[in-house]
Amino acid sequence: MAIAYPHFIGSEKSAMEAGIILSPSSPSPSLPHVILTQDELKKIAAYKAVEYVESGMVLGLGTGSTAKHAVDRIGELLRQGKLKNIVGIPTSKKTHEQAVSLGIPLSDLDSHPILDLAIDGADEVDPYLNLVKGRGGSLLREKMVEGACKKFVVIVDESKLVNHLGGSGLAMPVEIVPFCWKFTAQRLQMLFEESGCVAKLRTYENGEPFVTDNRNYIVDLYFKREIGDLKVASDAILRLAGVVEHGMFLGMATTLIVAGECGVVVKDK
Amino acid sequence: MAIAYPHFIGSEKSAMEAGIILSPSSPSPSLPHVILTQDELKKIAAYKAVEYVESGMVLGLGTGSTAKHAVDRIGELLRQGKLKNIVGIPTSKKTHEQAVSLGIPLSDLDSHPILDLAIDGADEVDPYLNLVKGRGGSLLREKMVEGACKKFVVIVDESKLVNHLGGSGLAMPVEIVPFCWKFTAQRLQMLFEESGCVAKLRTYENGEPFVTDNRNYIVDLYFKREIGDLKVASDAILRLAGVVEHGMFLGMATTLIVAGECGVVVKDK
Repeated sequence: MAIAYPHFIGSEKSAMEAGIILSPSSPSPSLPHVILTQDELKKIAAYKAVEYVESGMVLGLGTGSTAKHAVDRIGELLRQGKLKNIVGIPTSKKTHEQAVSLGIPLSDLDSHPILDLAIDGADEVDPYLNLVKGRGGSLLREKMVEGACKKFVVIVDESKLVNHLGGSGLAMPVEIVPFCWKFTAQRLQMLFEESGCVAKLRTYENGEPFVTDNRNYIVDLYFKREIGDLKVASDAILRLAGVVEHGMFLGMATTLIVAGECGVVVKDK
Repeated sequence: MAIAYPHFIGSEKSAMEAGIILSPSSPSPSLPHVILTQDELKKIAAYKAVEYVESGMVLGLGTGSTAKHAVDRIGELLRQGKLKNIVGIPTSKKTHEQAVSLGIPLSDLDSHPILDLAIDGADEVDPYLNLVKGRGGSLLREKMVEGACKKFVVIVDESKLVNHLGGSGLAMPVEIVPFCWKFTAQRLQMLFEESGCVAKLRTYENGEPFVTDNRNYIVDLYFKREIGDLKVASDAILRLAGVVEHGMFLGMATTLIVAGECGVVVKDK
């Protein structure tokens, strides 16, 4: 892993418990023979997270390539009768469709304002379990659902670990109203001028603006330097009229599960 | 007036300068014979505000029954050739239509990110020139436009003056995304539980949710007691995922014009 997580407790055993059988002839528990793909690592983390799910729970169902594995696994366990009486709250239209196809009973936040557990991926995780989410575009619904959970388990492969949010050099998304989006993008960029921020409207391949489930736009922020105090940055973004929500999830995750070549590590907050 | 505004300078003369001729036989300058309607008072304030407009300005055009008079007046002065080279930035689709019908040249924030002056009404004004706006439903666009102005002149009749925001007992509006609106309304109400807050979805007469120009909903907050530090309240509202913007305009107004039975009073910040 790129950075030290001193409190992590993990091993290849965890990966095997998660239902992923590594090479039994592996000469060292920390260095399995099999080279796992990024998607396989995501699956290991997802399966491990689903071990936290118990029958009768109201569950937040995440969105994205890692969370998809968790939702698949929950569907599988329901089908096998190993889980019962689950109510899922999807964080996007896409996850809603996936859950329906798997036969997972669904509801919403209006009916279940308190959730037992949510499982979701993240685009960046810092050492304090602060997250960047929303490169998939579902940050607002994810934040609403995951902010209403007693426990929030974040599942990532090790490539998502960063020293500080924004540190991957990839996008930090902000959902904004379409009205005068250039103006809002410009103000966002100016807000983080000292961090060398560049703000770009997210578009589809055809150049049309990407539209969220809430019919808003996404402006992706790219930083050259650290953005400083995250809470201050969060409030500054939210105070801009025209901003709906941003992709920093501060102090929300309660457990982090990281799958890497050396096994699965679990960090509780 | 309901409350004391010690720095106000105003008189019936101001009202006359604003283009409204009071009864010439009025026995006392402070007690004119003519009883003015609320709409006439709004018009007096609006006409006074338009005196701040100069040729060549980029102007924020407000929304609502008071601002409508100001926009009408600007159109009239343009037609008469007394104003030239005005660019208007409307704060709602409704004002956009009104300005088009008056022949006022229009643009938007993307093209004009800095405005010279905005004129708009308010639903409540406290002694520090903090405002509640948005009972007309245009709070987000108004806040975007008026936050980009060098000068922001607020025009009200005296019924809008309050000791503290929320003090009129009328709505403090919050624009929210439609997704799980009940959940968001409930969280807003809980946020101000100590102030005896009641949160209600704004609806049309047929019971359908009121929809803003940005295709969002409005939750109206009603308070029994003061909400305390306004900046703290503002940040707390904005931190709720699902909230787009609220109707408190803090520290934004630079000039207040109040029309009352005793004349027009002007207060600069």
